[in-house]
Amino acid sequence: MEETKERMIVVAVDESEESMEALSWSLDNLFPYGSNNTLILLYVKPPLPVYSSLDAAGFIVTGDPVAALKKYEYELVESVMARSRTVYQDYESDINIERRIGRGDAKEVICKAVEKLRANMLVMGTHDYGFFKRALLGSVSEYCAKRVKCPVIIVKKQPEDN
Amino acid sequence: MEETKERMIVVAVDESEESMEALSWSLDNLFPYGSNNTLILLYVKPPLPVYSSLDAAGFIVTGDPVAALKKYEYELVESVMARSRTVYQDYESDINIERRIGRGDAKEVICKAVEKLRANMLVMGTHDYGFFKRALLGSVSEYCAKRVKCPVIIVKKQPEDN
Repeated sequence: MEETKERMIVVAVDESEESMEALSWSLDNLFPYGSNNTLILLYVKPPLPVYSSLDAAGFIVTGDPVAALKKYEYELVESVMARSRTVYQDYESDINIERRIGRGDAKEVICKAVEKLRANMLVMGTHDYGFFKRALLGSVSEYCAKRVKCPVIIVKKQPEDN
Repeated sequence: MEETKERMIVVAVDESEESMEALSWSLDNLFPYGSNNTLILLYVKPPLPVYSSLDAAGFIVTGDPVAALKKYEYELVESVMARSRTVYQDYESDINIERRIGRGDAKEVICKAVEKLRANMLVMGTHDYGFFKRALLGSVSEYCAKRVKCPVIIVKKQPEDN
């Protein structure tokens, strides 16, 4: 009986509705009253493209595309975290929540973060597409489910009445 | 806040250590004190082979291979359920546990059972083999994770000290 054992639960969040569903599911099911579990919101930014300050014709680019991209990214991160907040704010008083931002190939960054944090669970949303798309999509959750050592929870967007 | 909502949690069990790990994980994490959750132990027997009462040389086979196989299967089911019992008996007083036995291709039977029972979660163990075997094994959990609509939890055998 280890009711009071603290668990570290990583929930991978991104711009998708599915990841918010995963967050909501986690709060409903993995944070019973009185638990000391910690929820880590993990967001992974895509790798930065390499920019040259010269454009294709050899002219110096006015403005700073890297700075513009970083600003856009910052806003994207804030937007995802704000959406997450609307999901968890009803629970917030009881739950330890941390934010982590990574950069790179999402599936690899998630696996590495789970290992580095020695997380006890990884929760991810996934798509529920038809037969043809299934082979291509949902690949991040599949990749992580195979590679991380801790239990992986794959949450699909549920019908509204469920 | 839906603390008292009853959830139906299917745990697929078989002869493997991994499935017992999945059962143990479920009890630790999905059955907080006071929950009304129901745990369904699902065991799938393989399809029965078609037997003829004549052997290859045309002689009538003495004894009844189907009866012998059924007896063997019965013992196998009882053995898996007995192992499950040693895992859940410490929790039993608080948890509703049901046993379900299916027959057929495990991955298909599990998916159908989850749908028919309108389960809220499916928990499965999986193997953690090296790179080469990974592509072949763990296929039941992968198949089910793609097809069932409810959240799927994939549990790997943890190191002893975890």
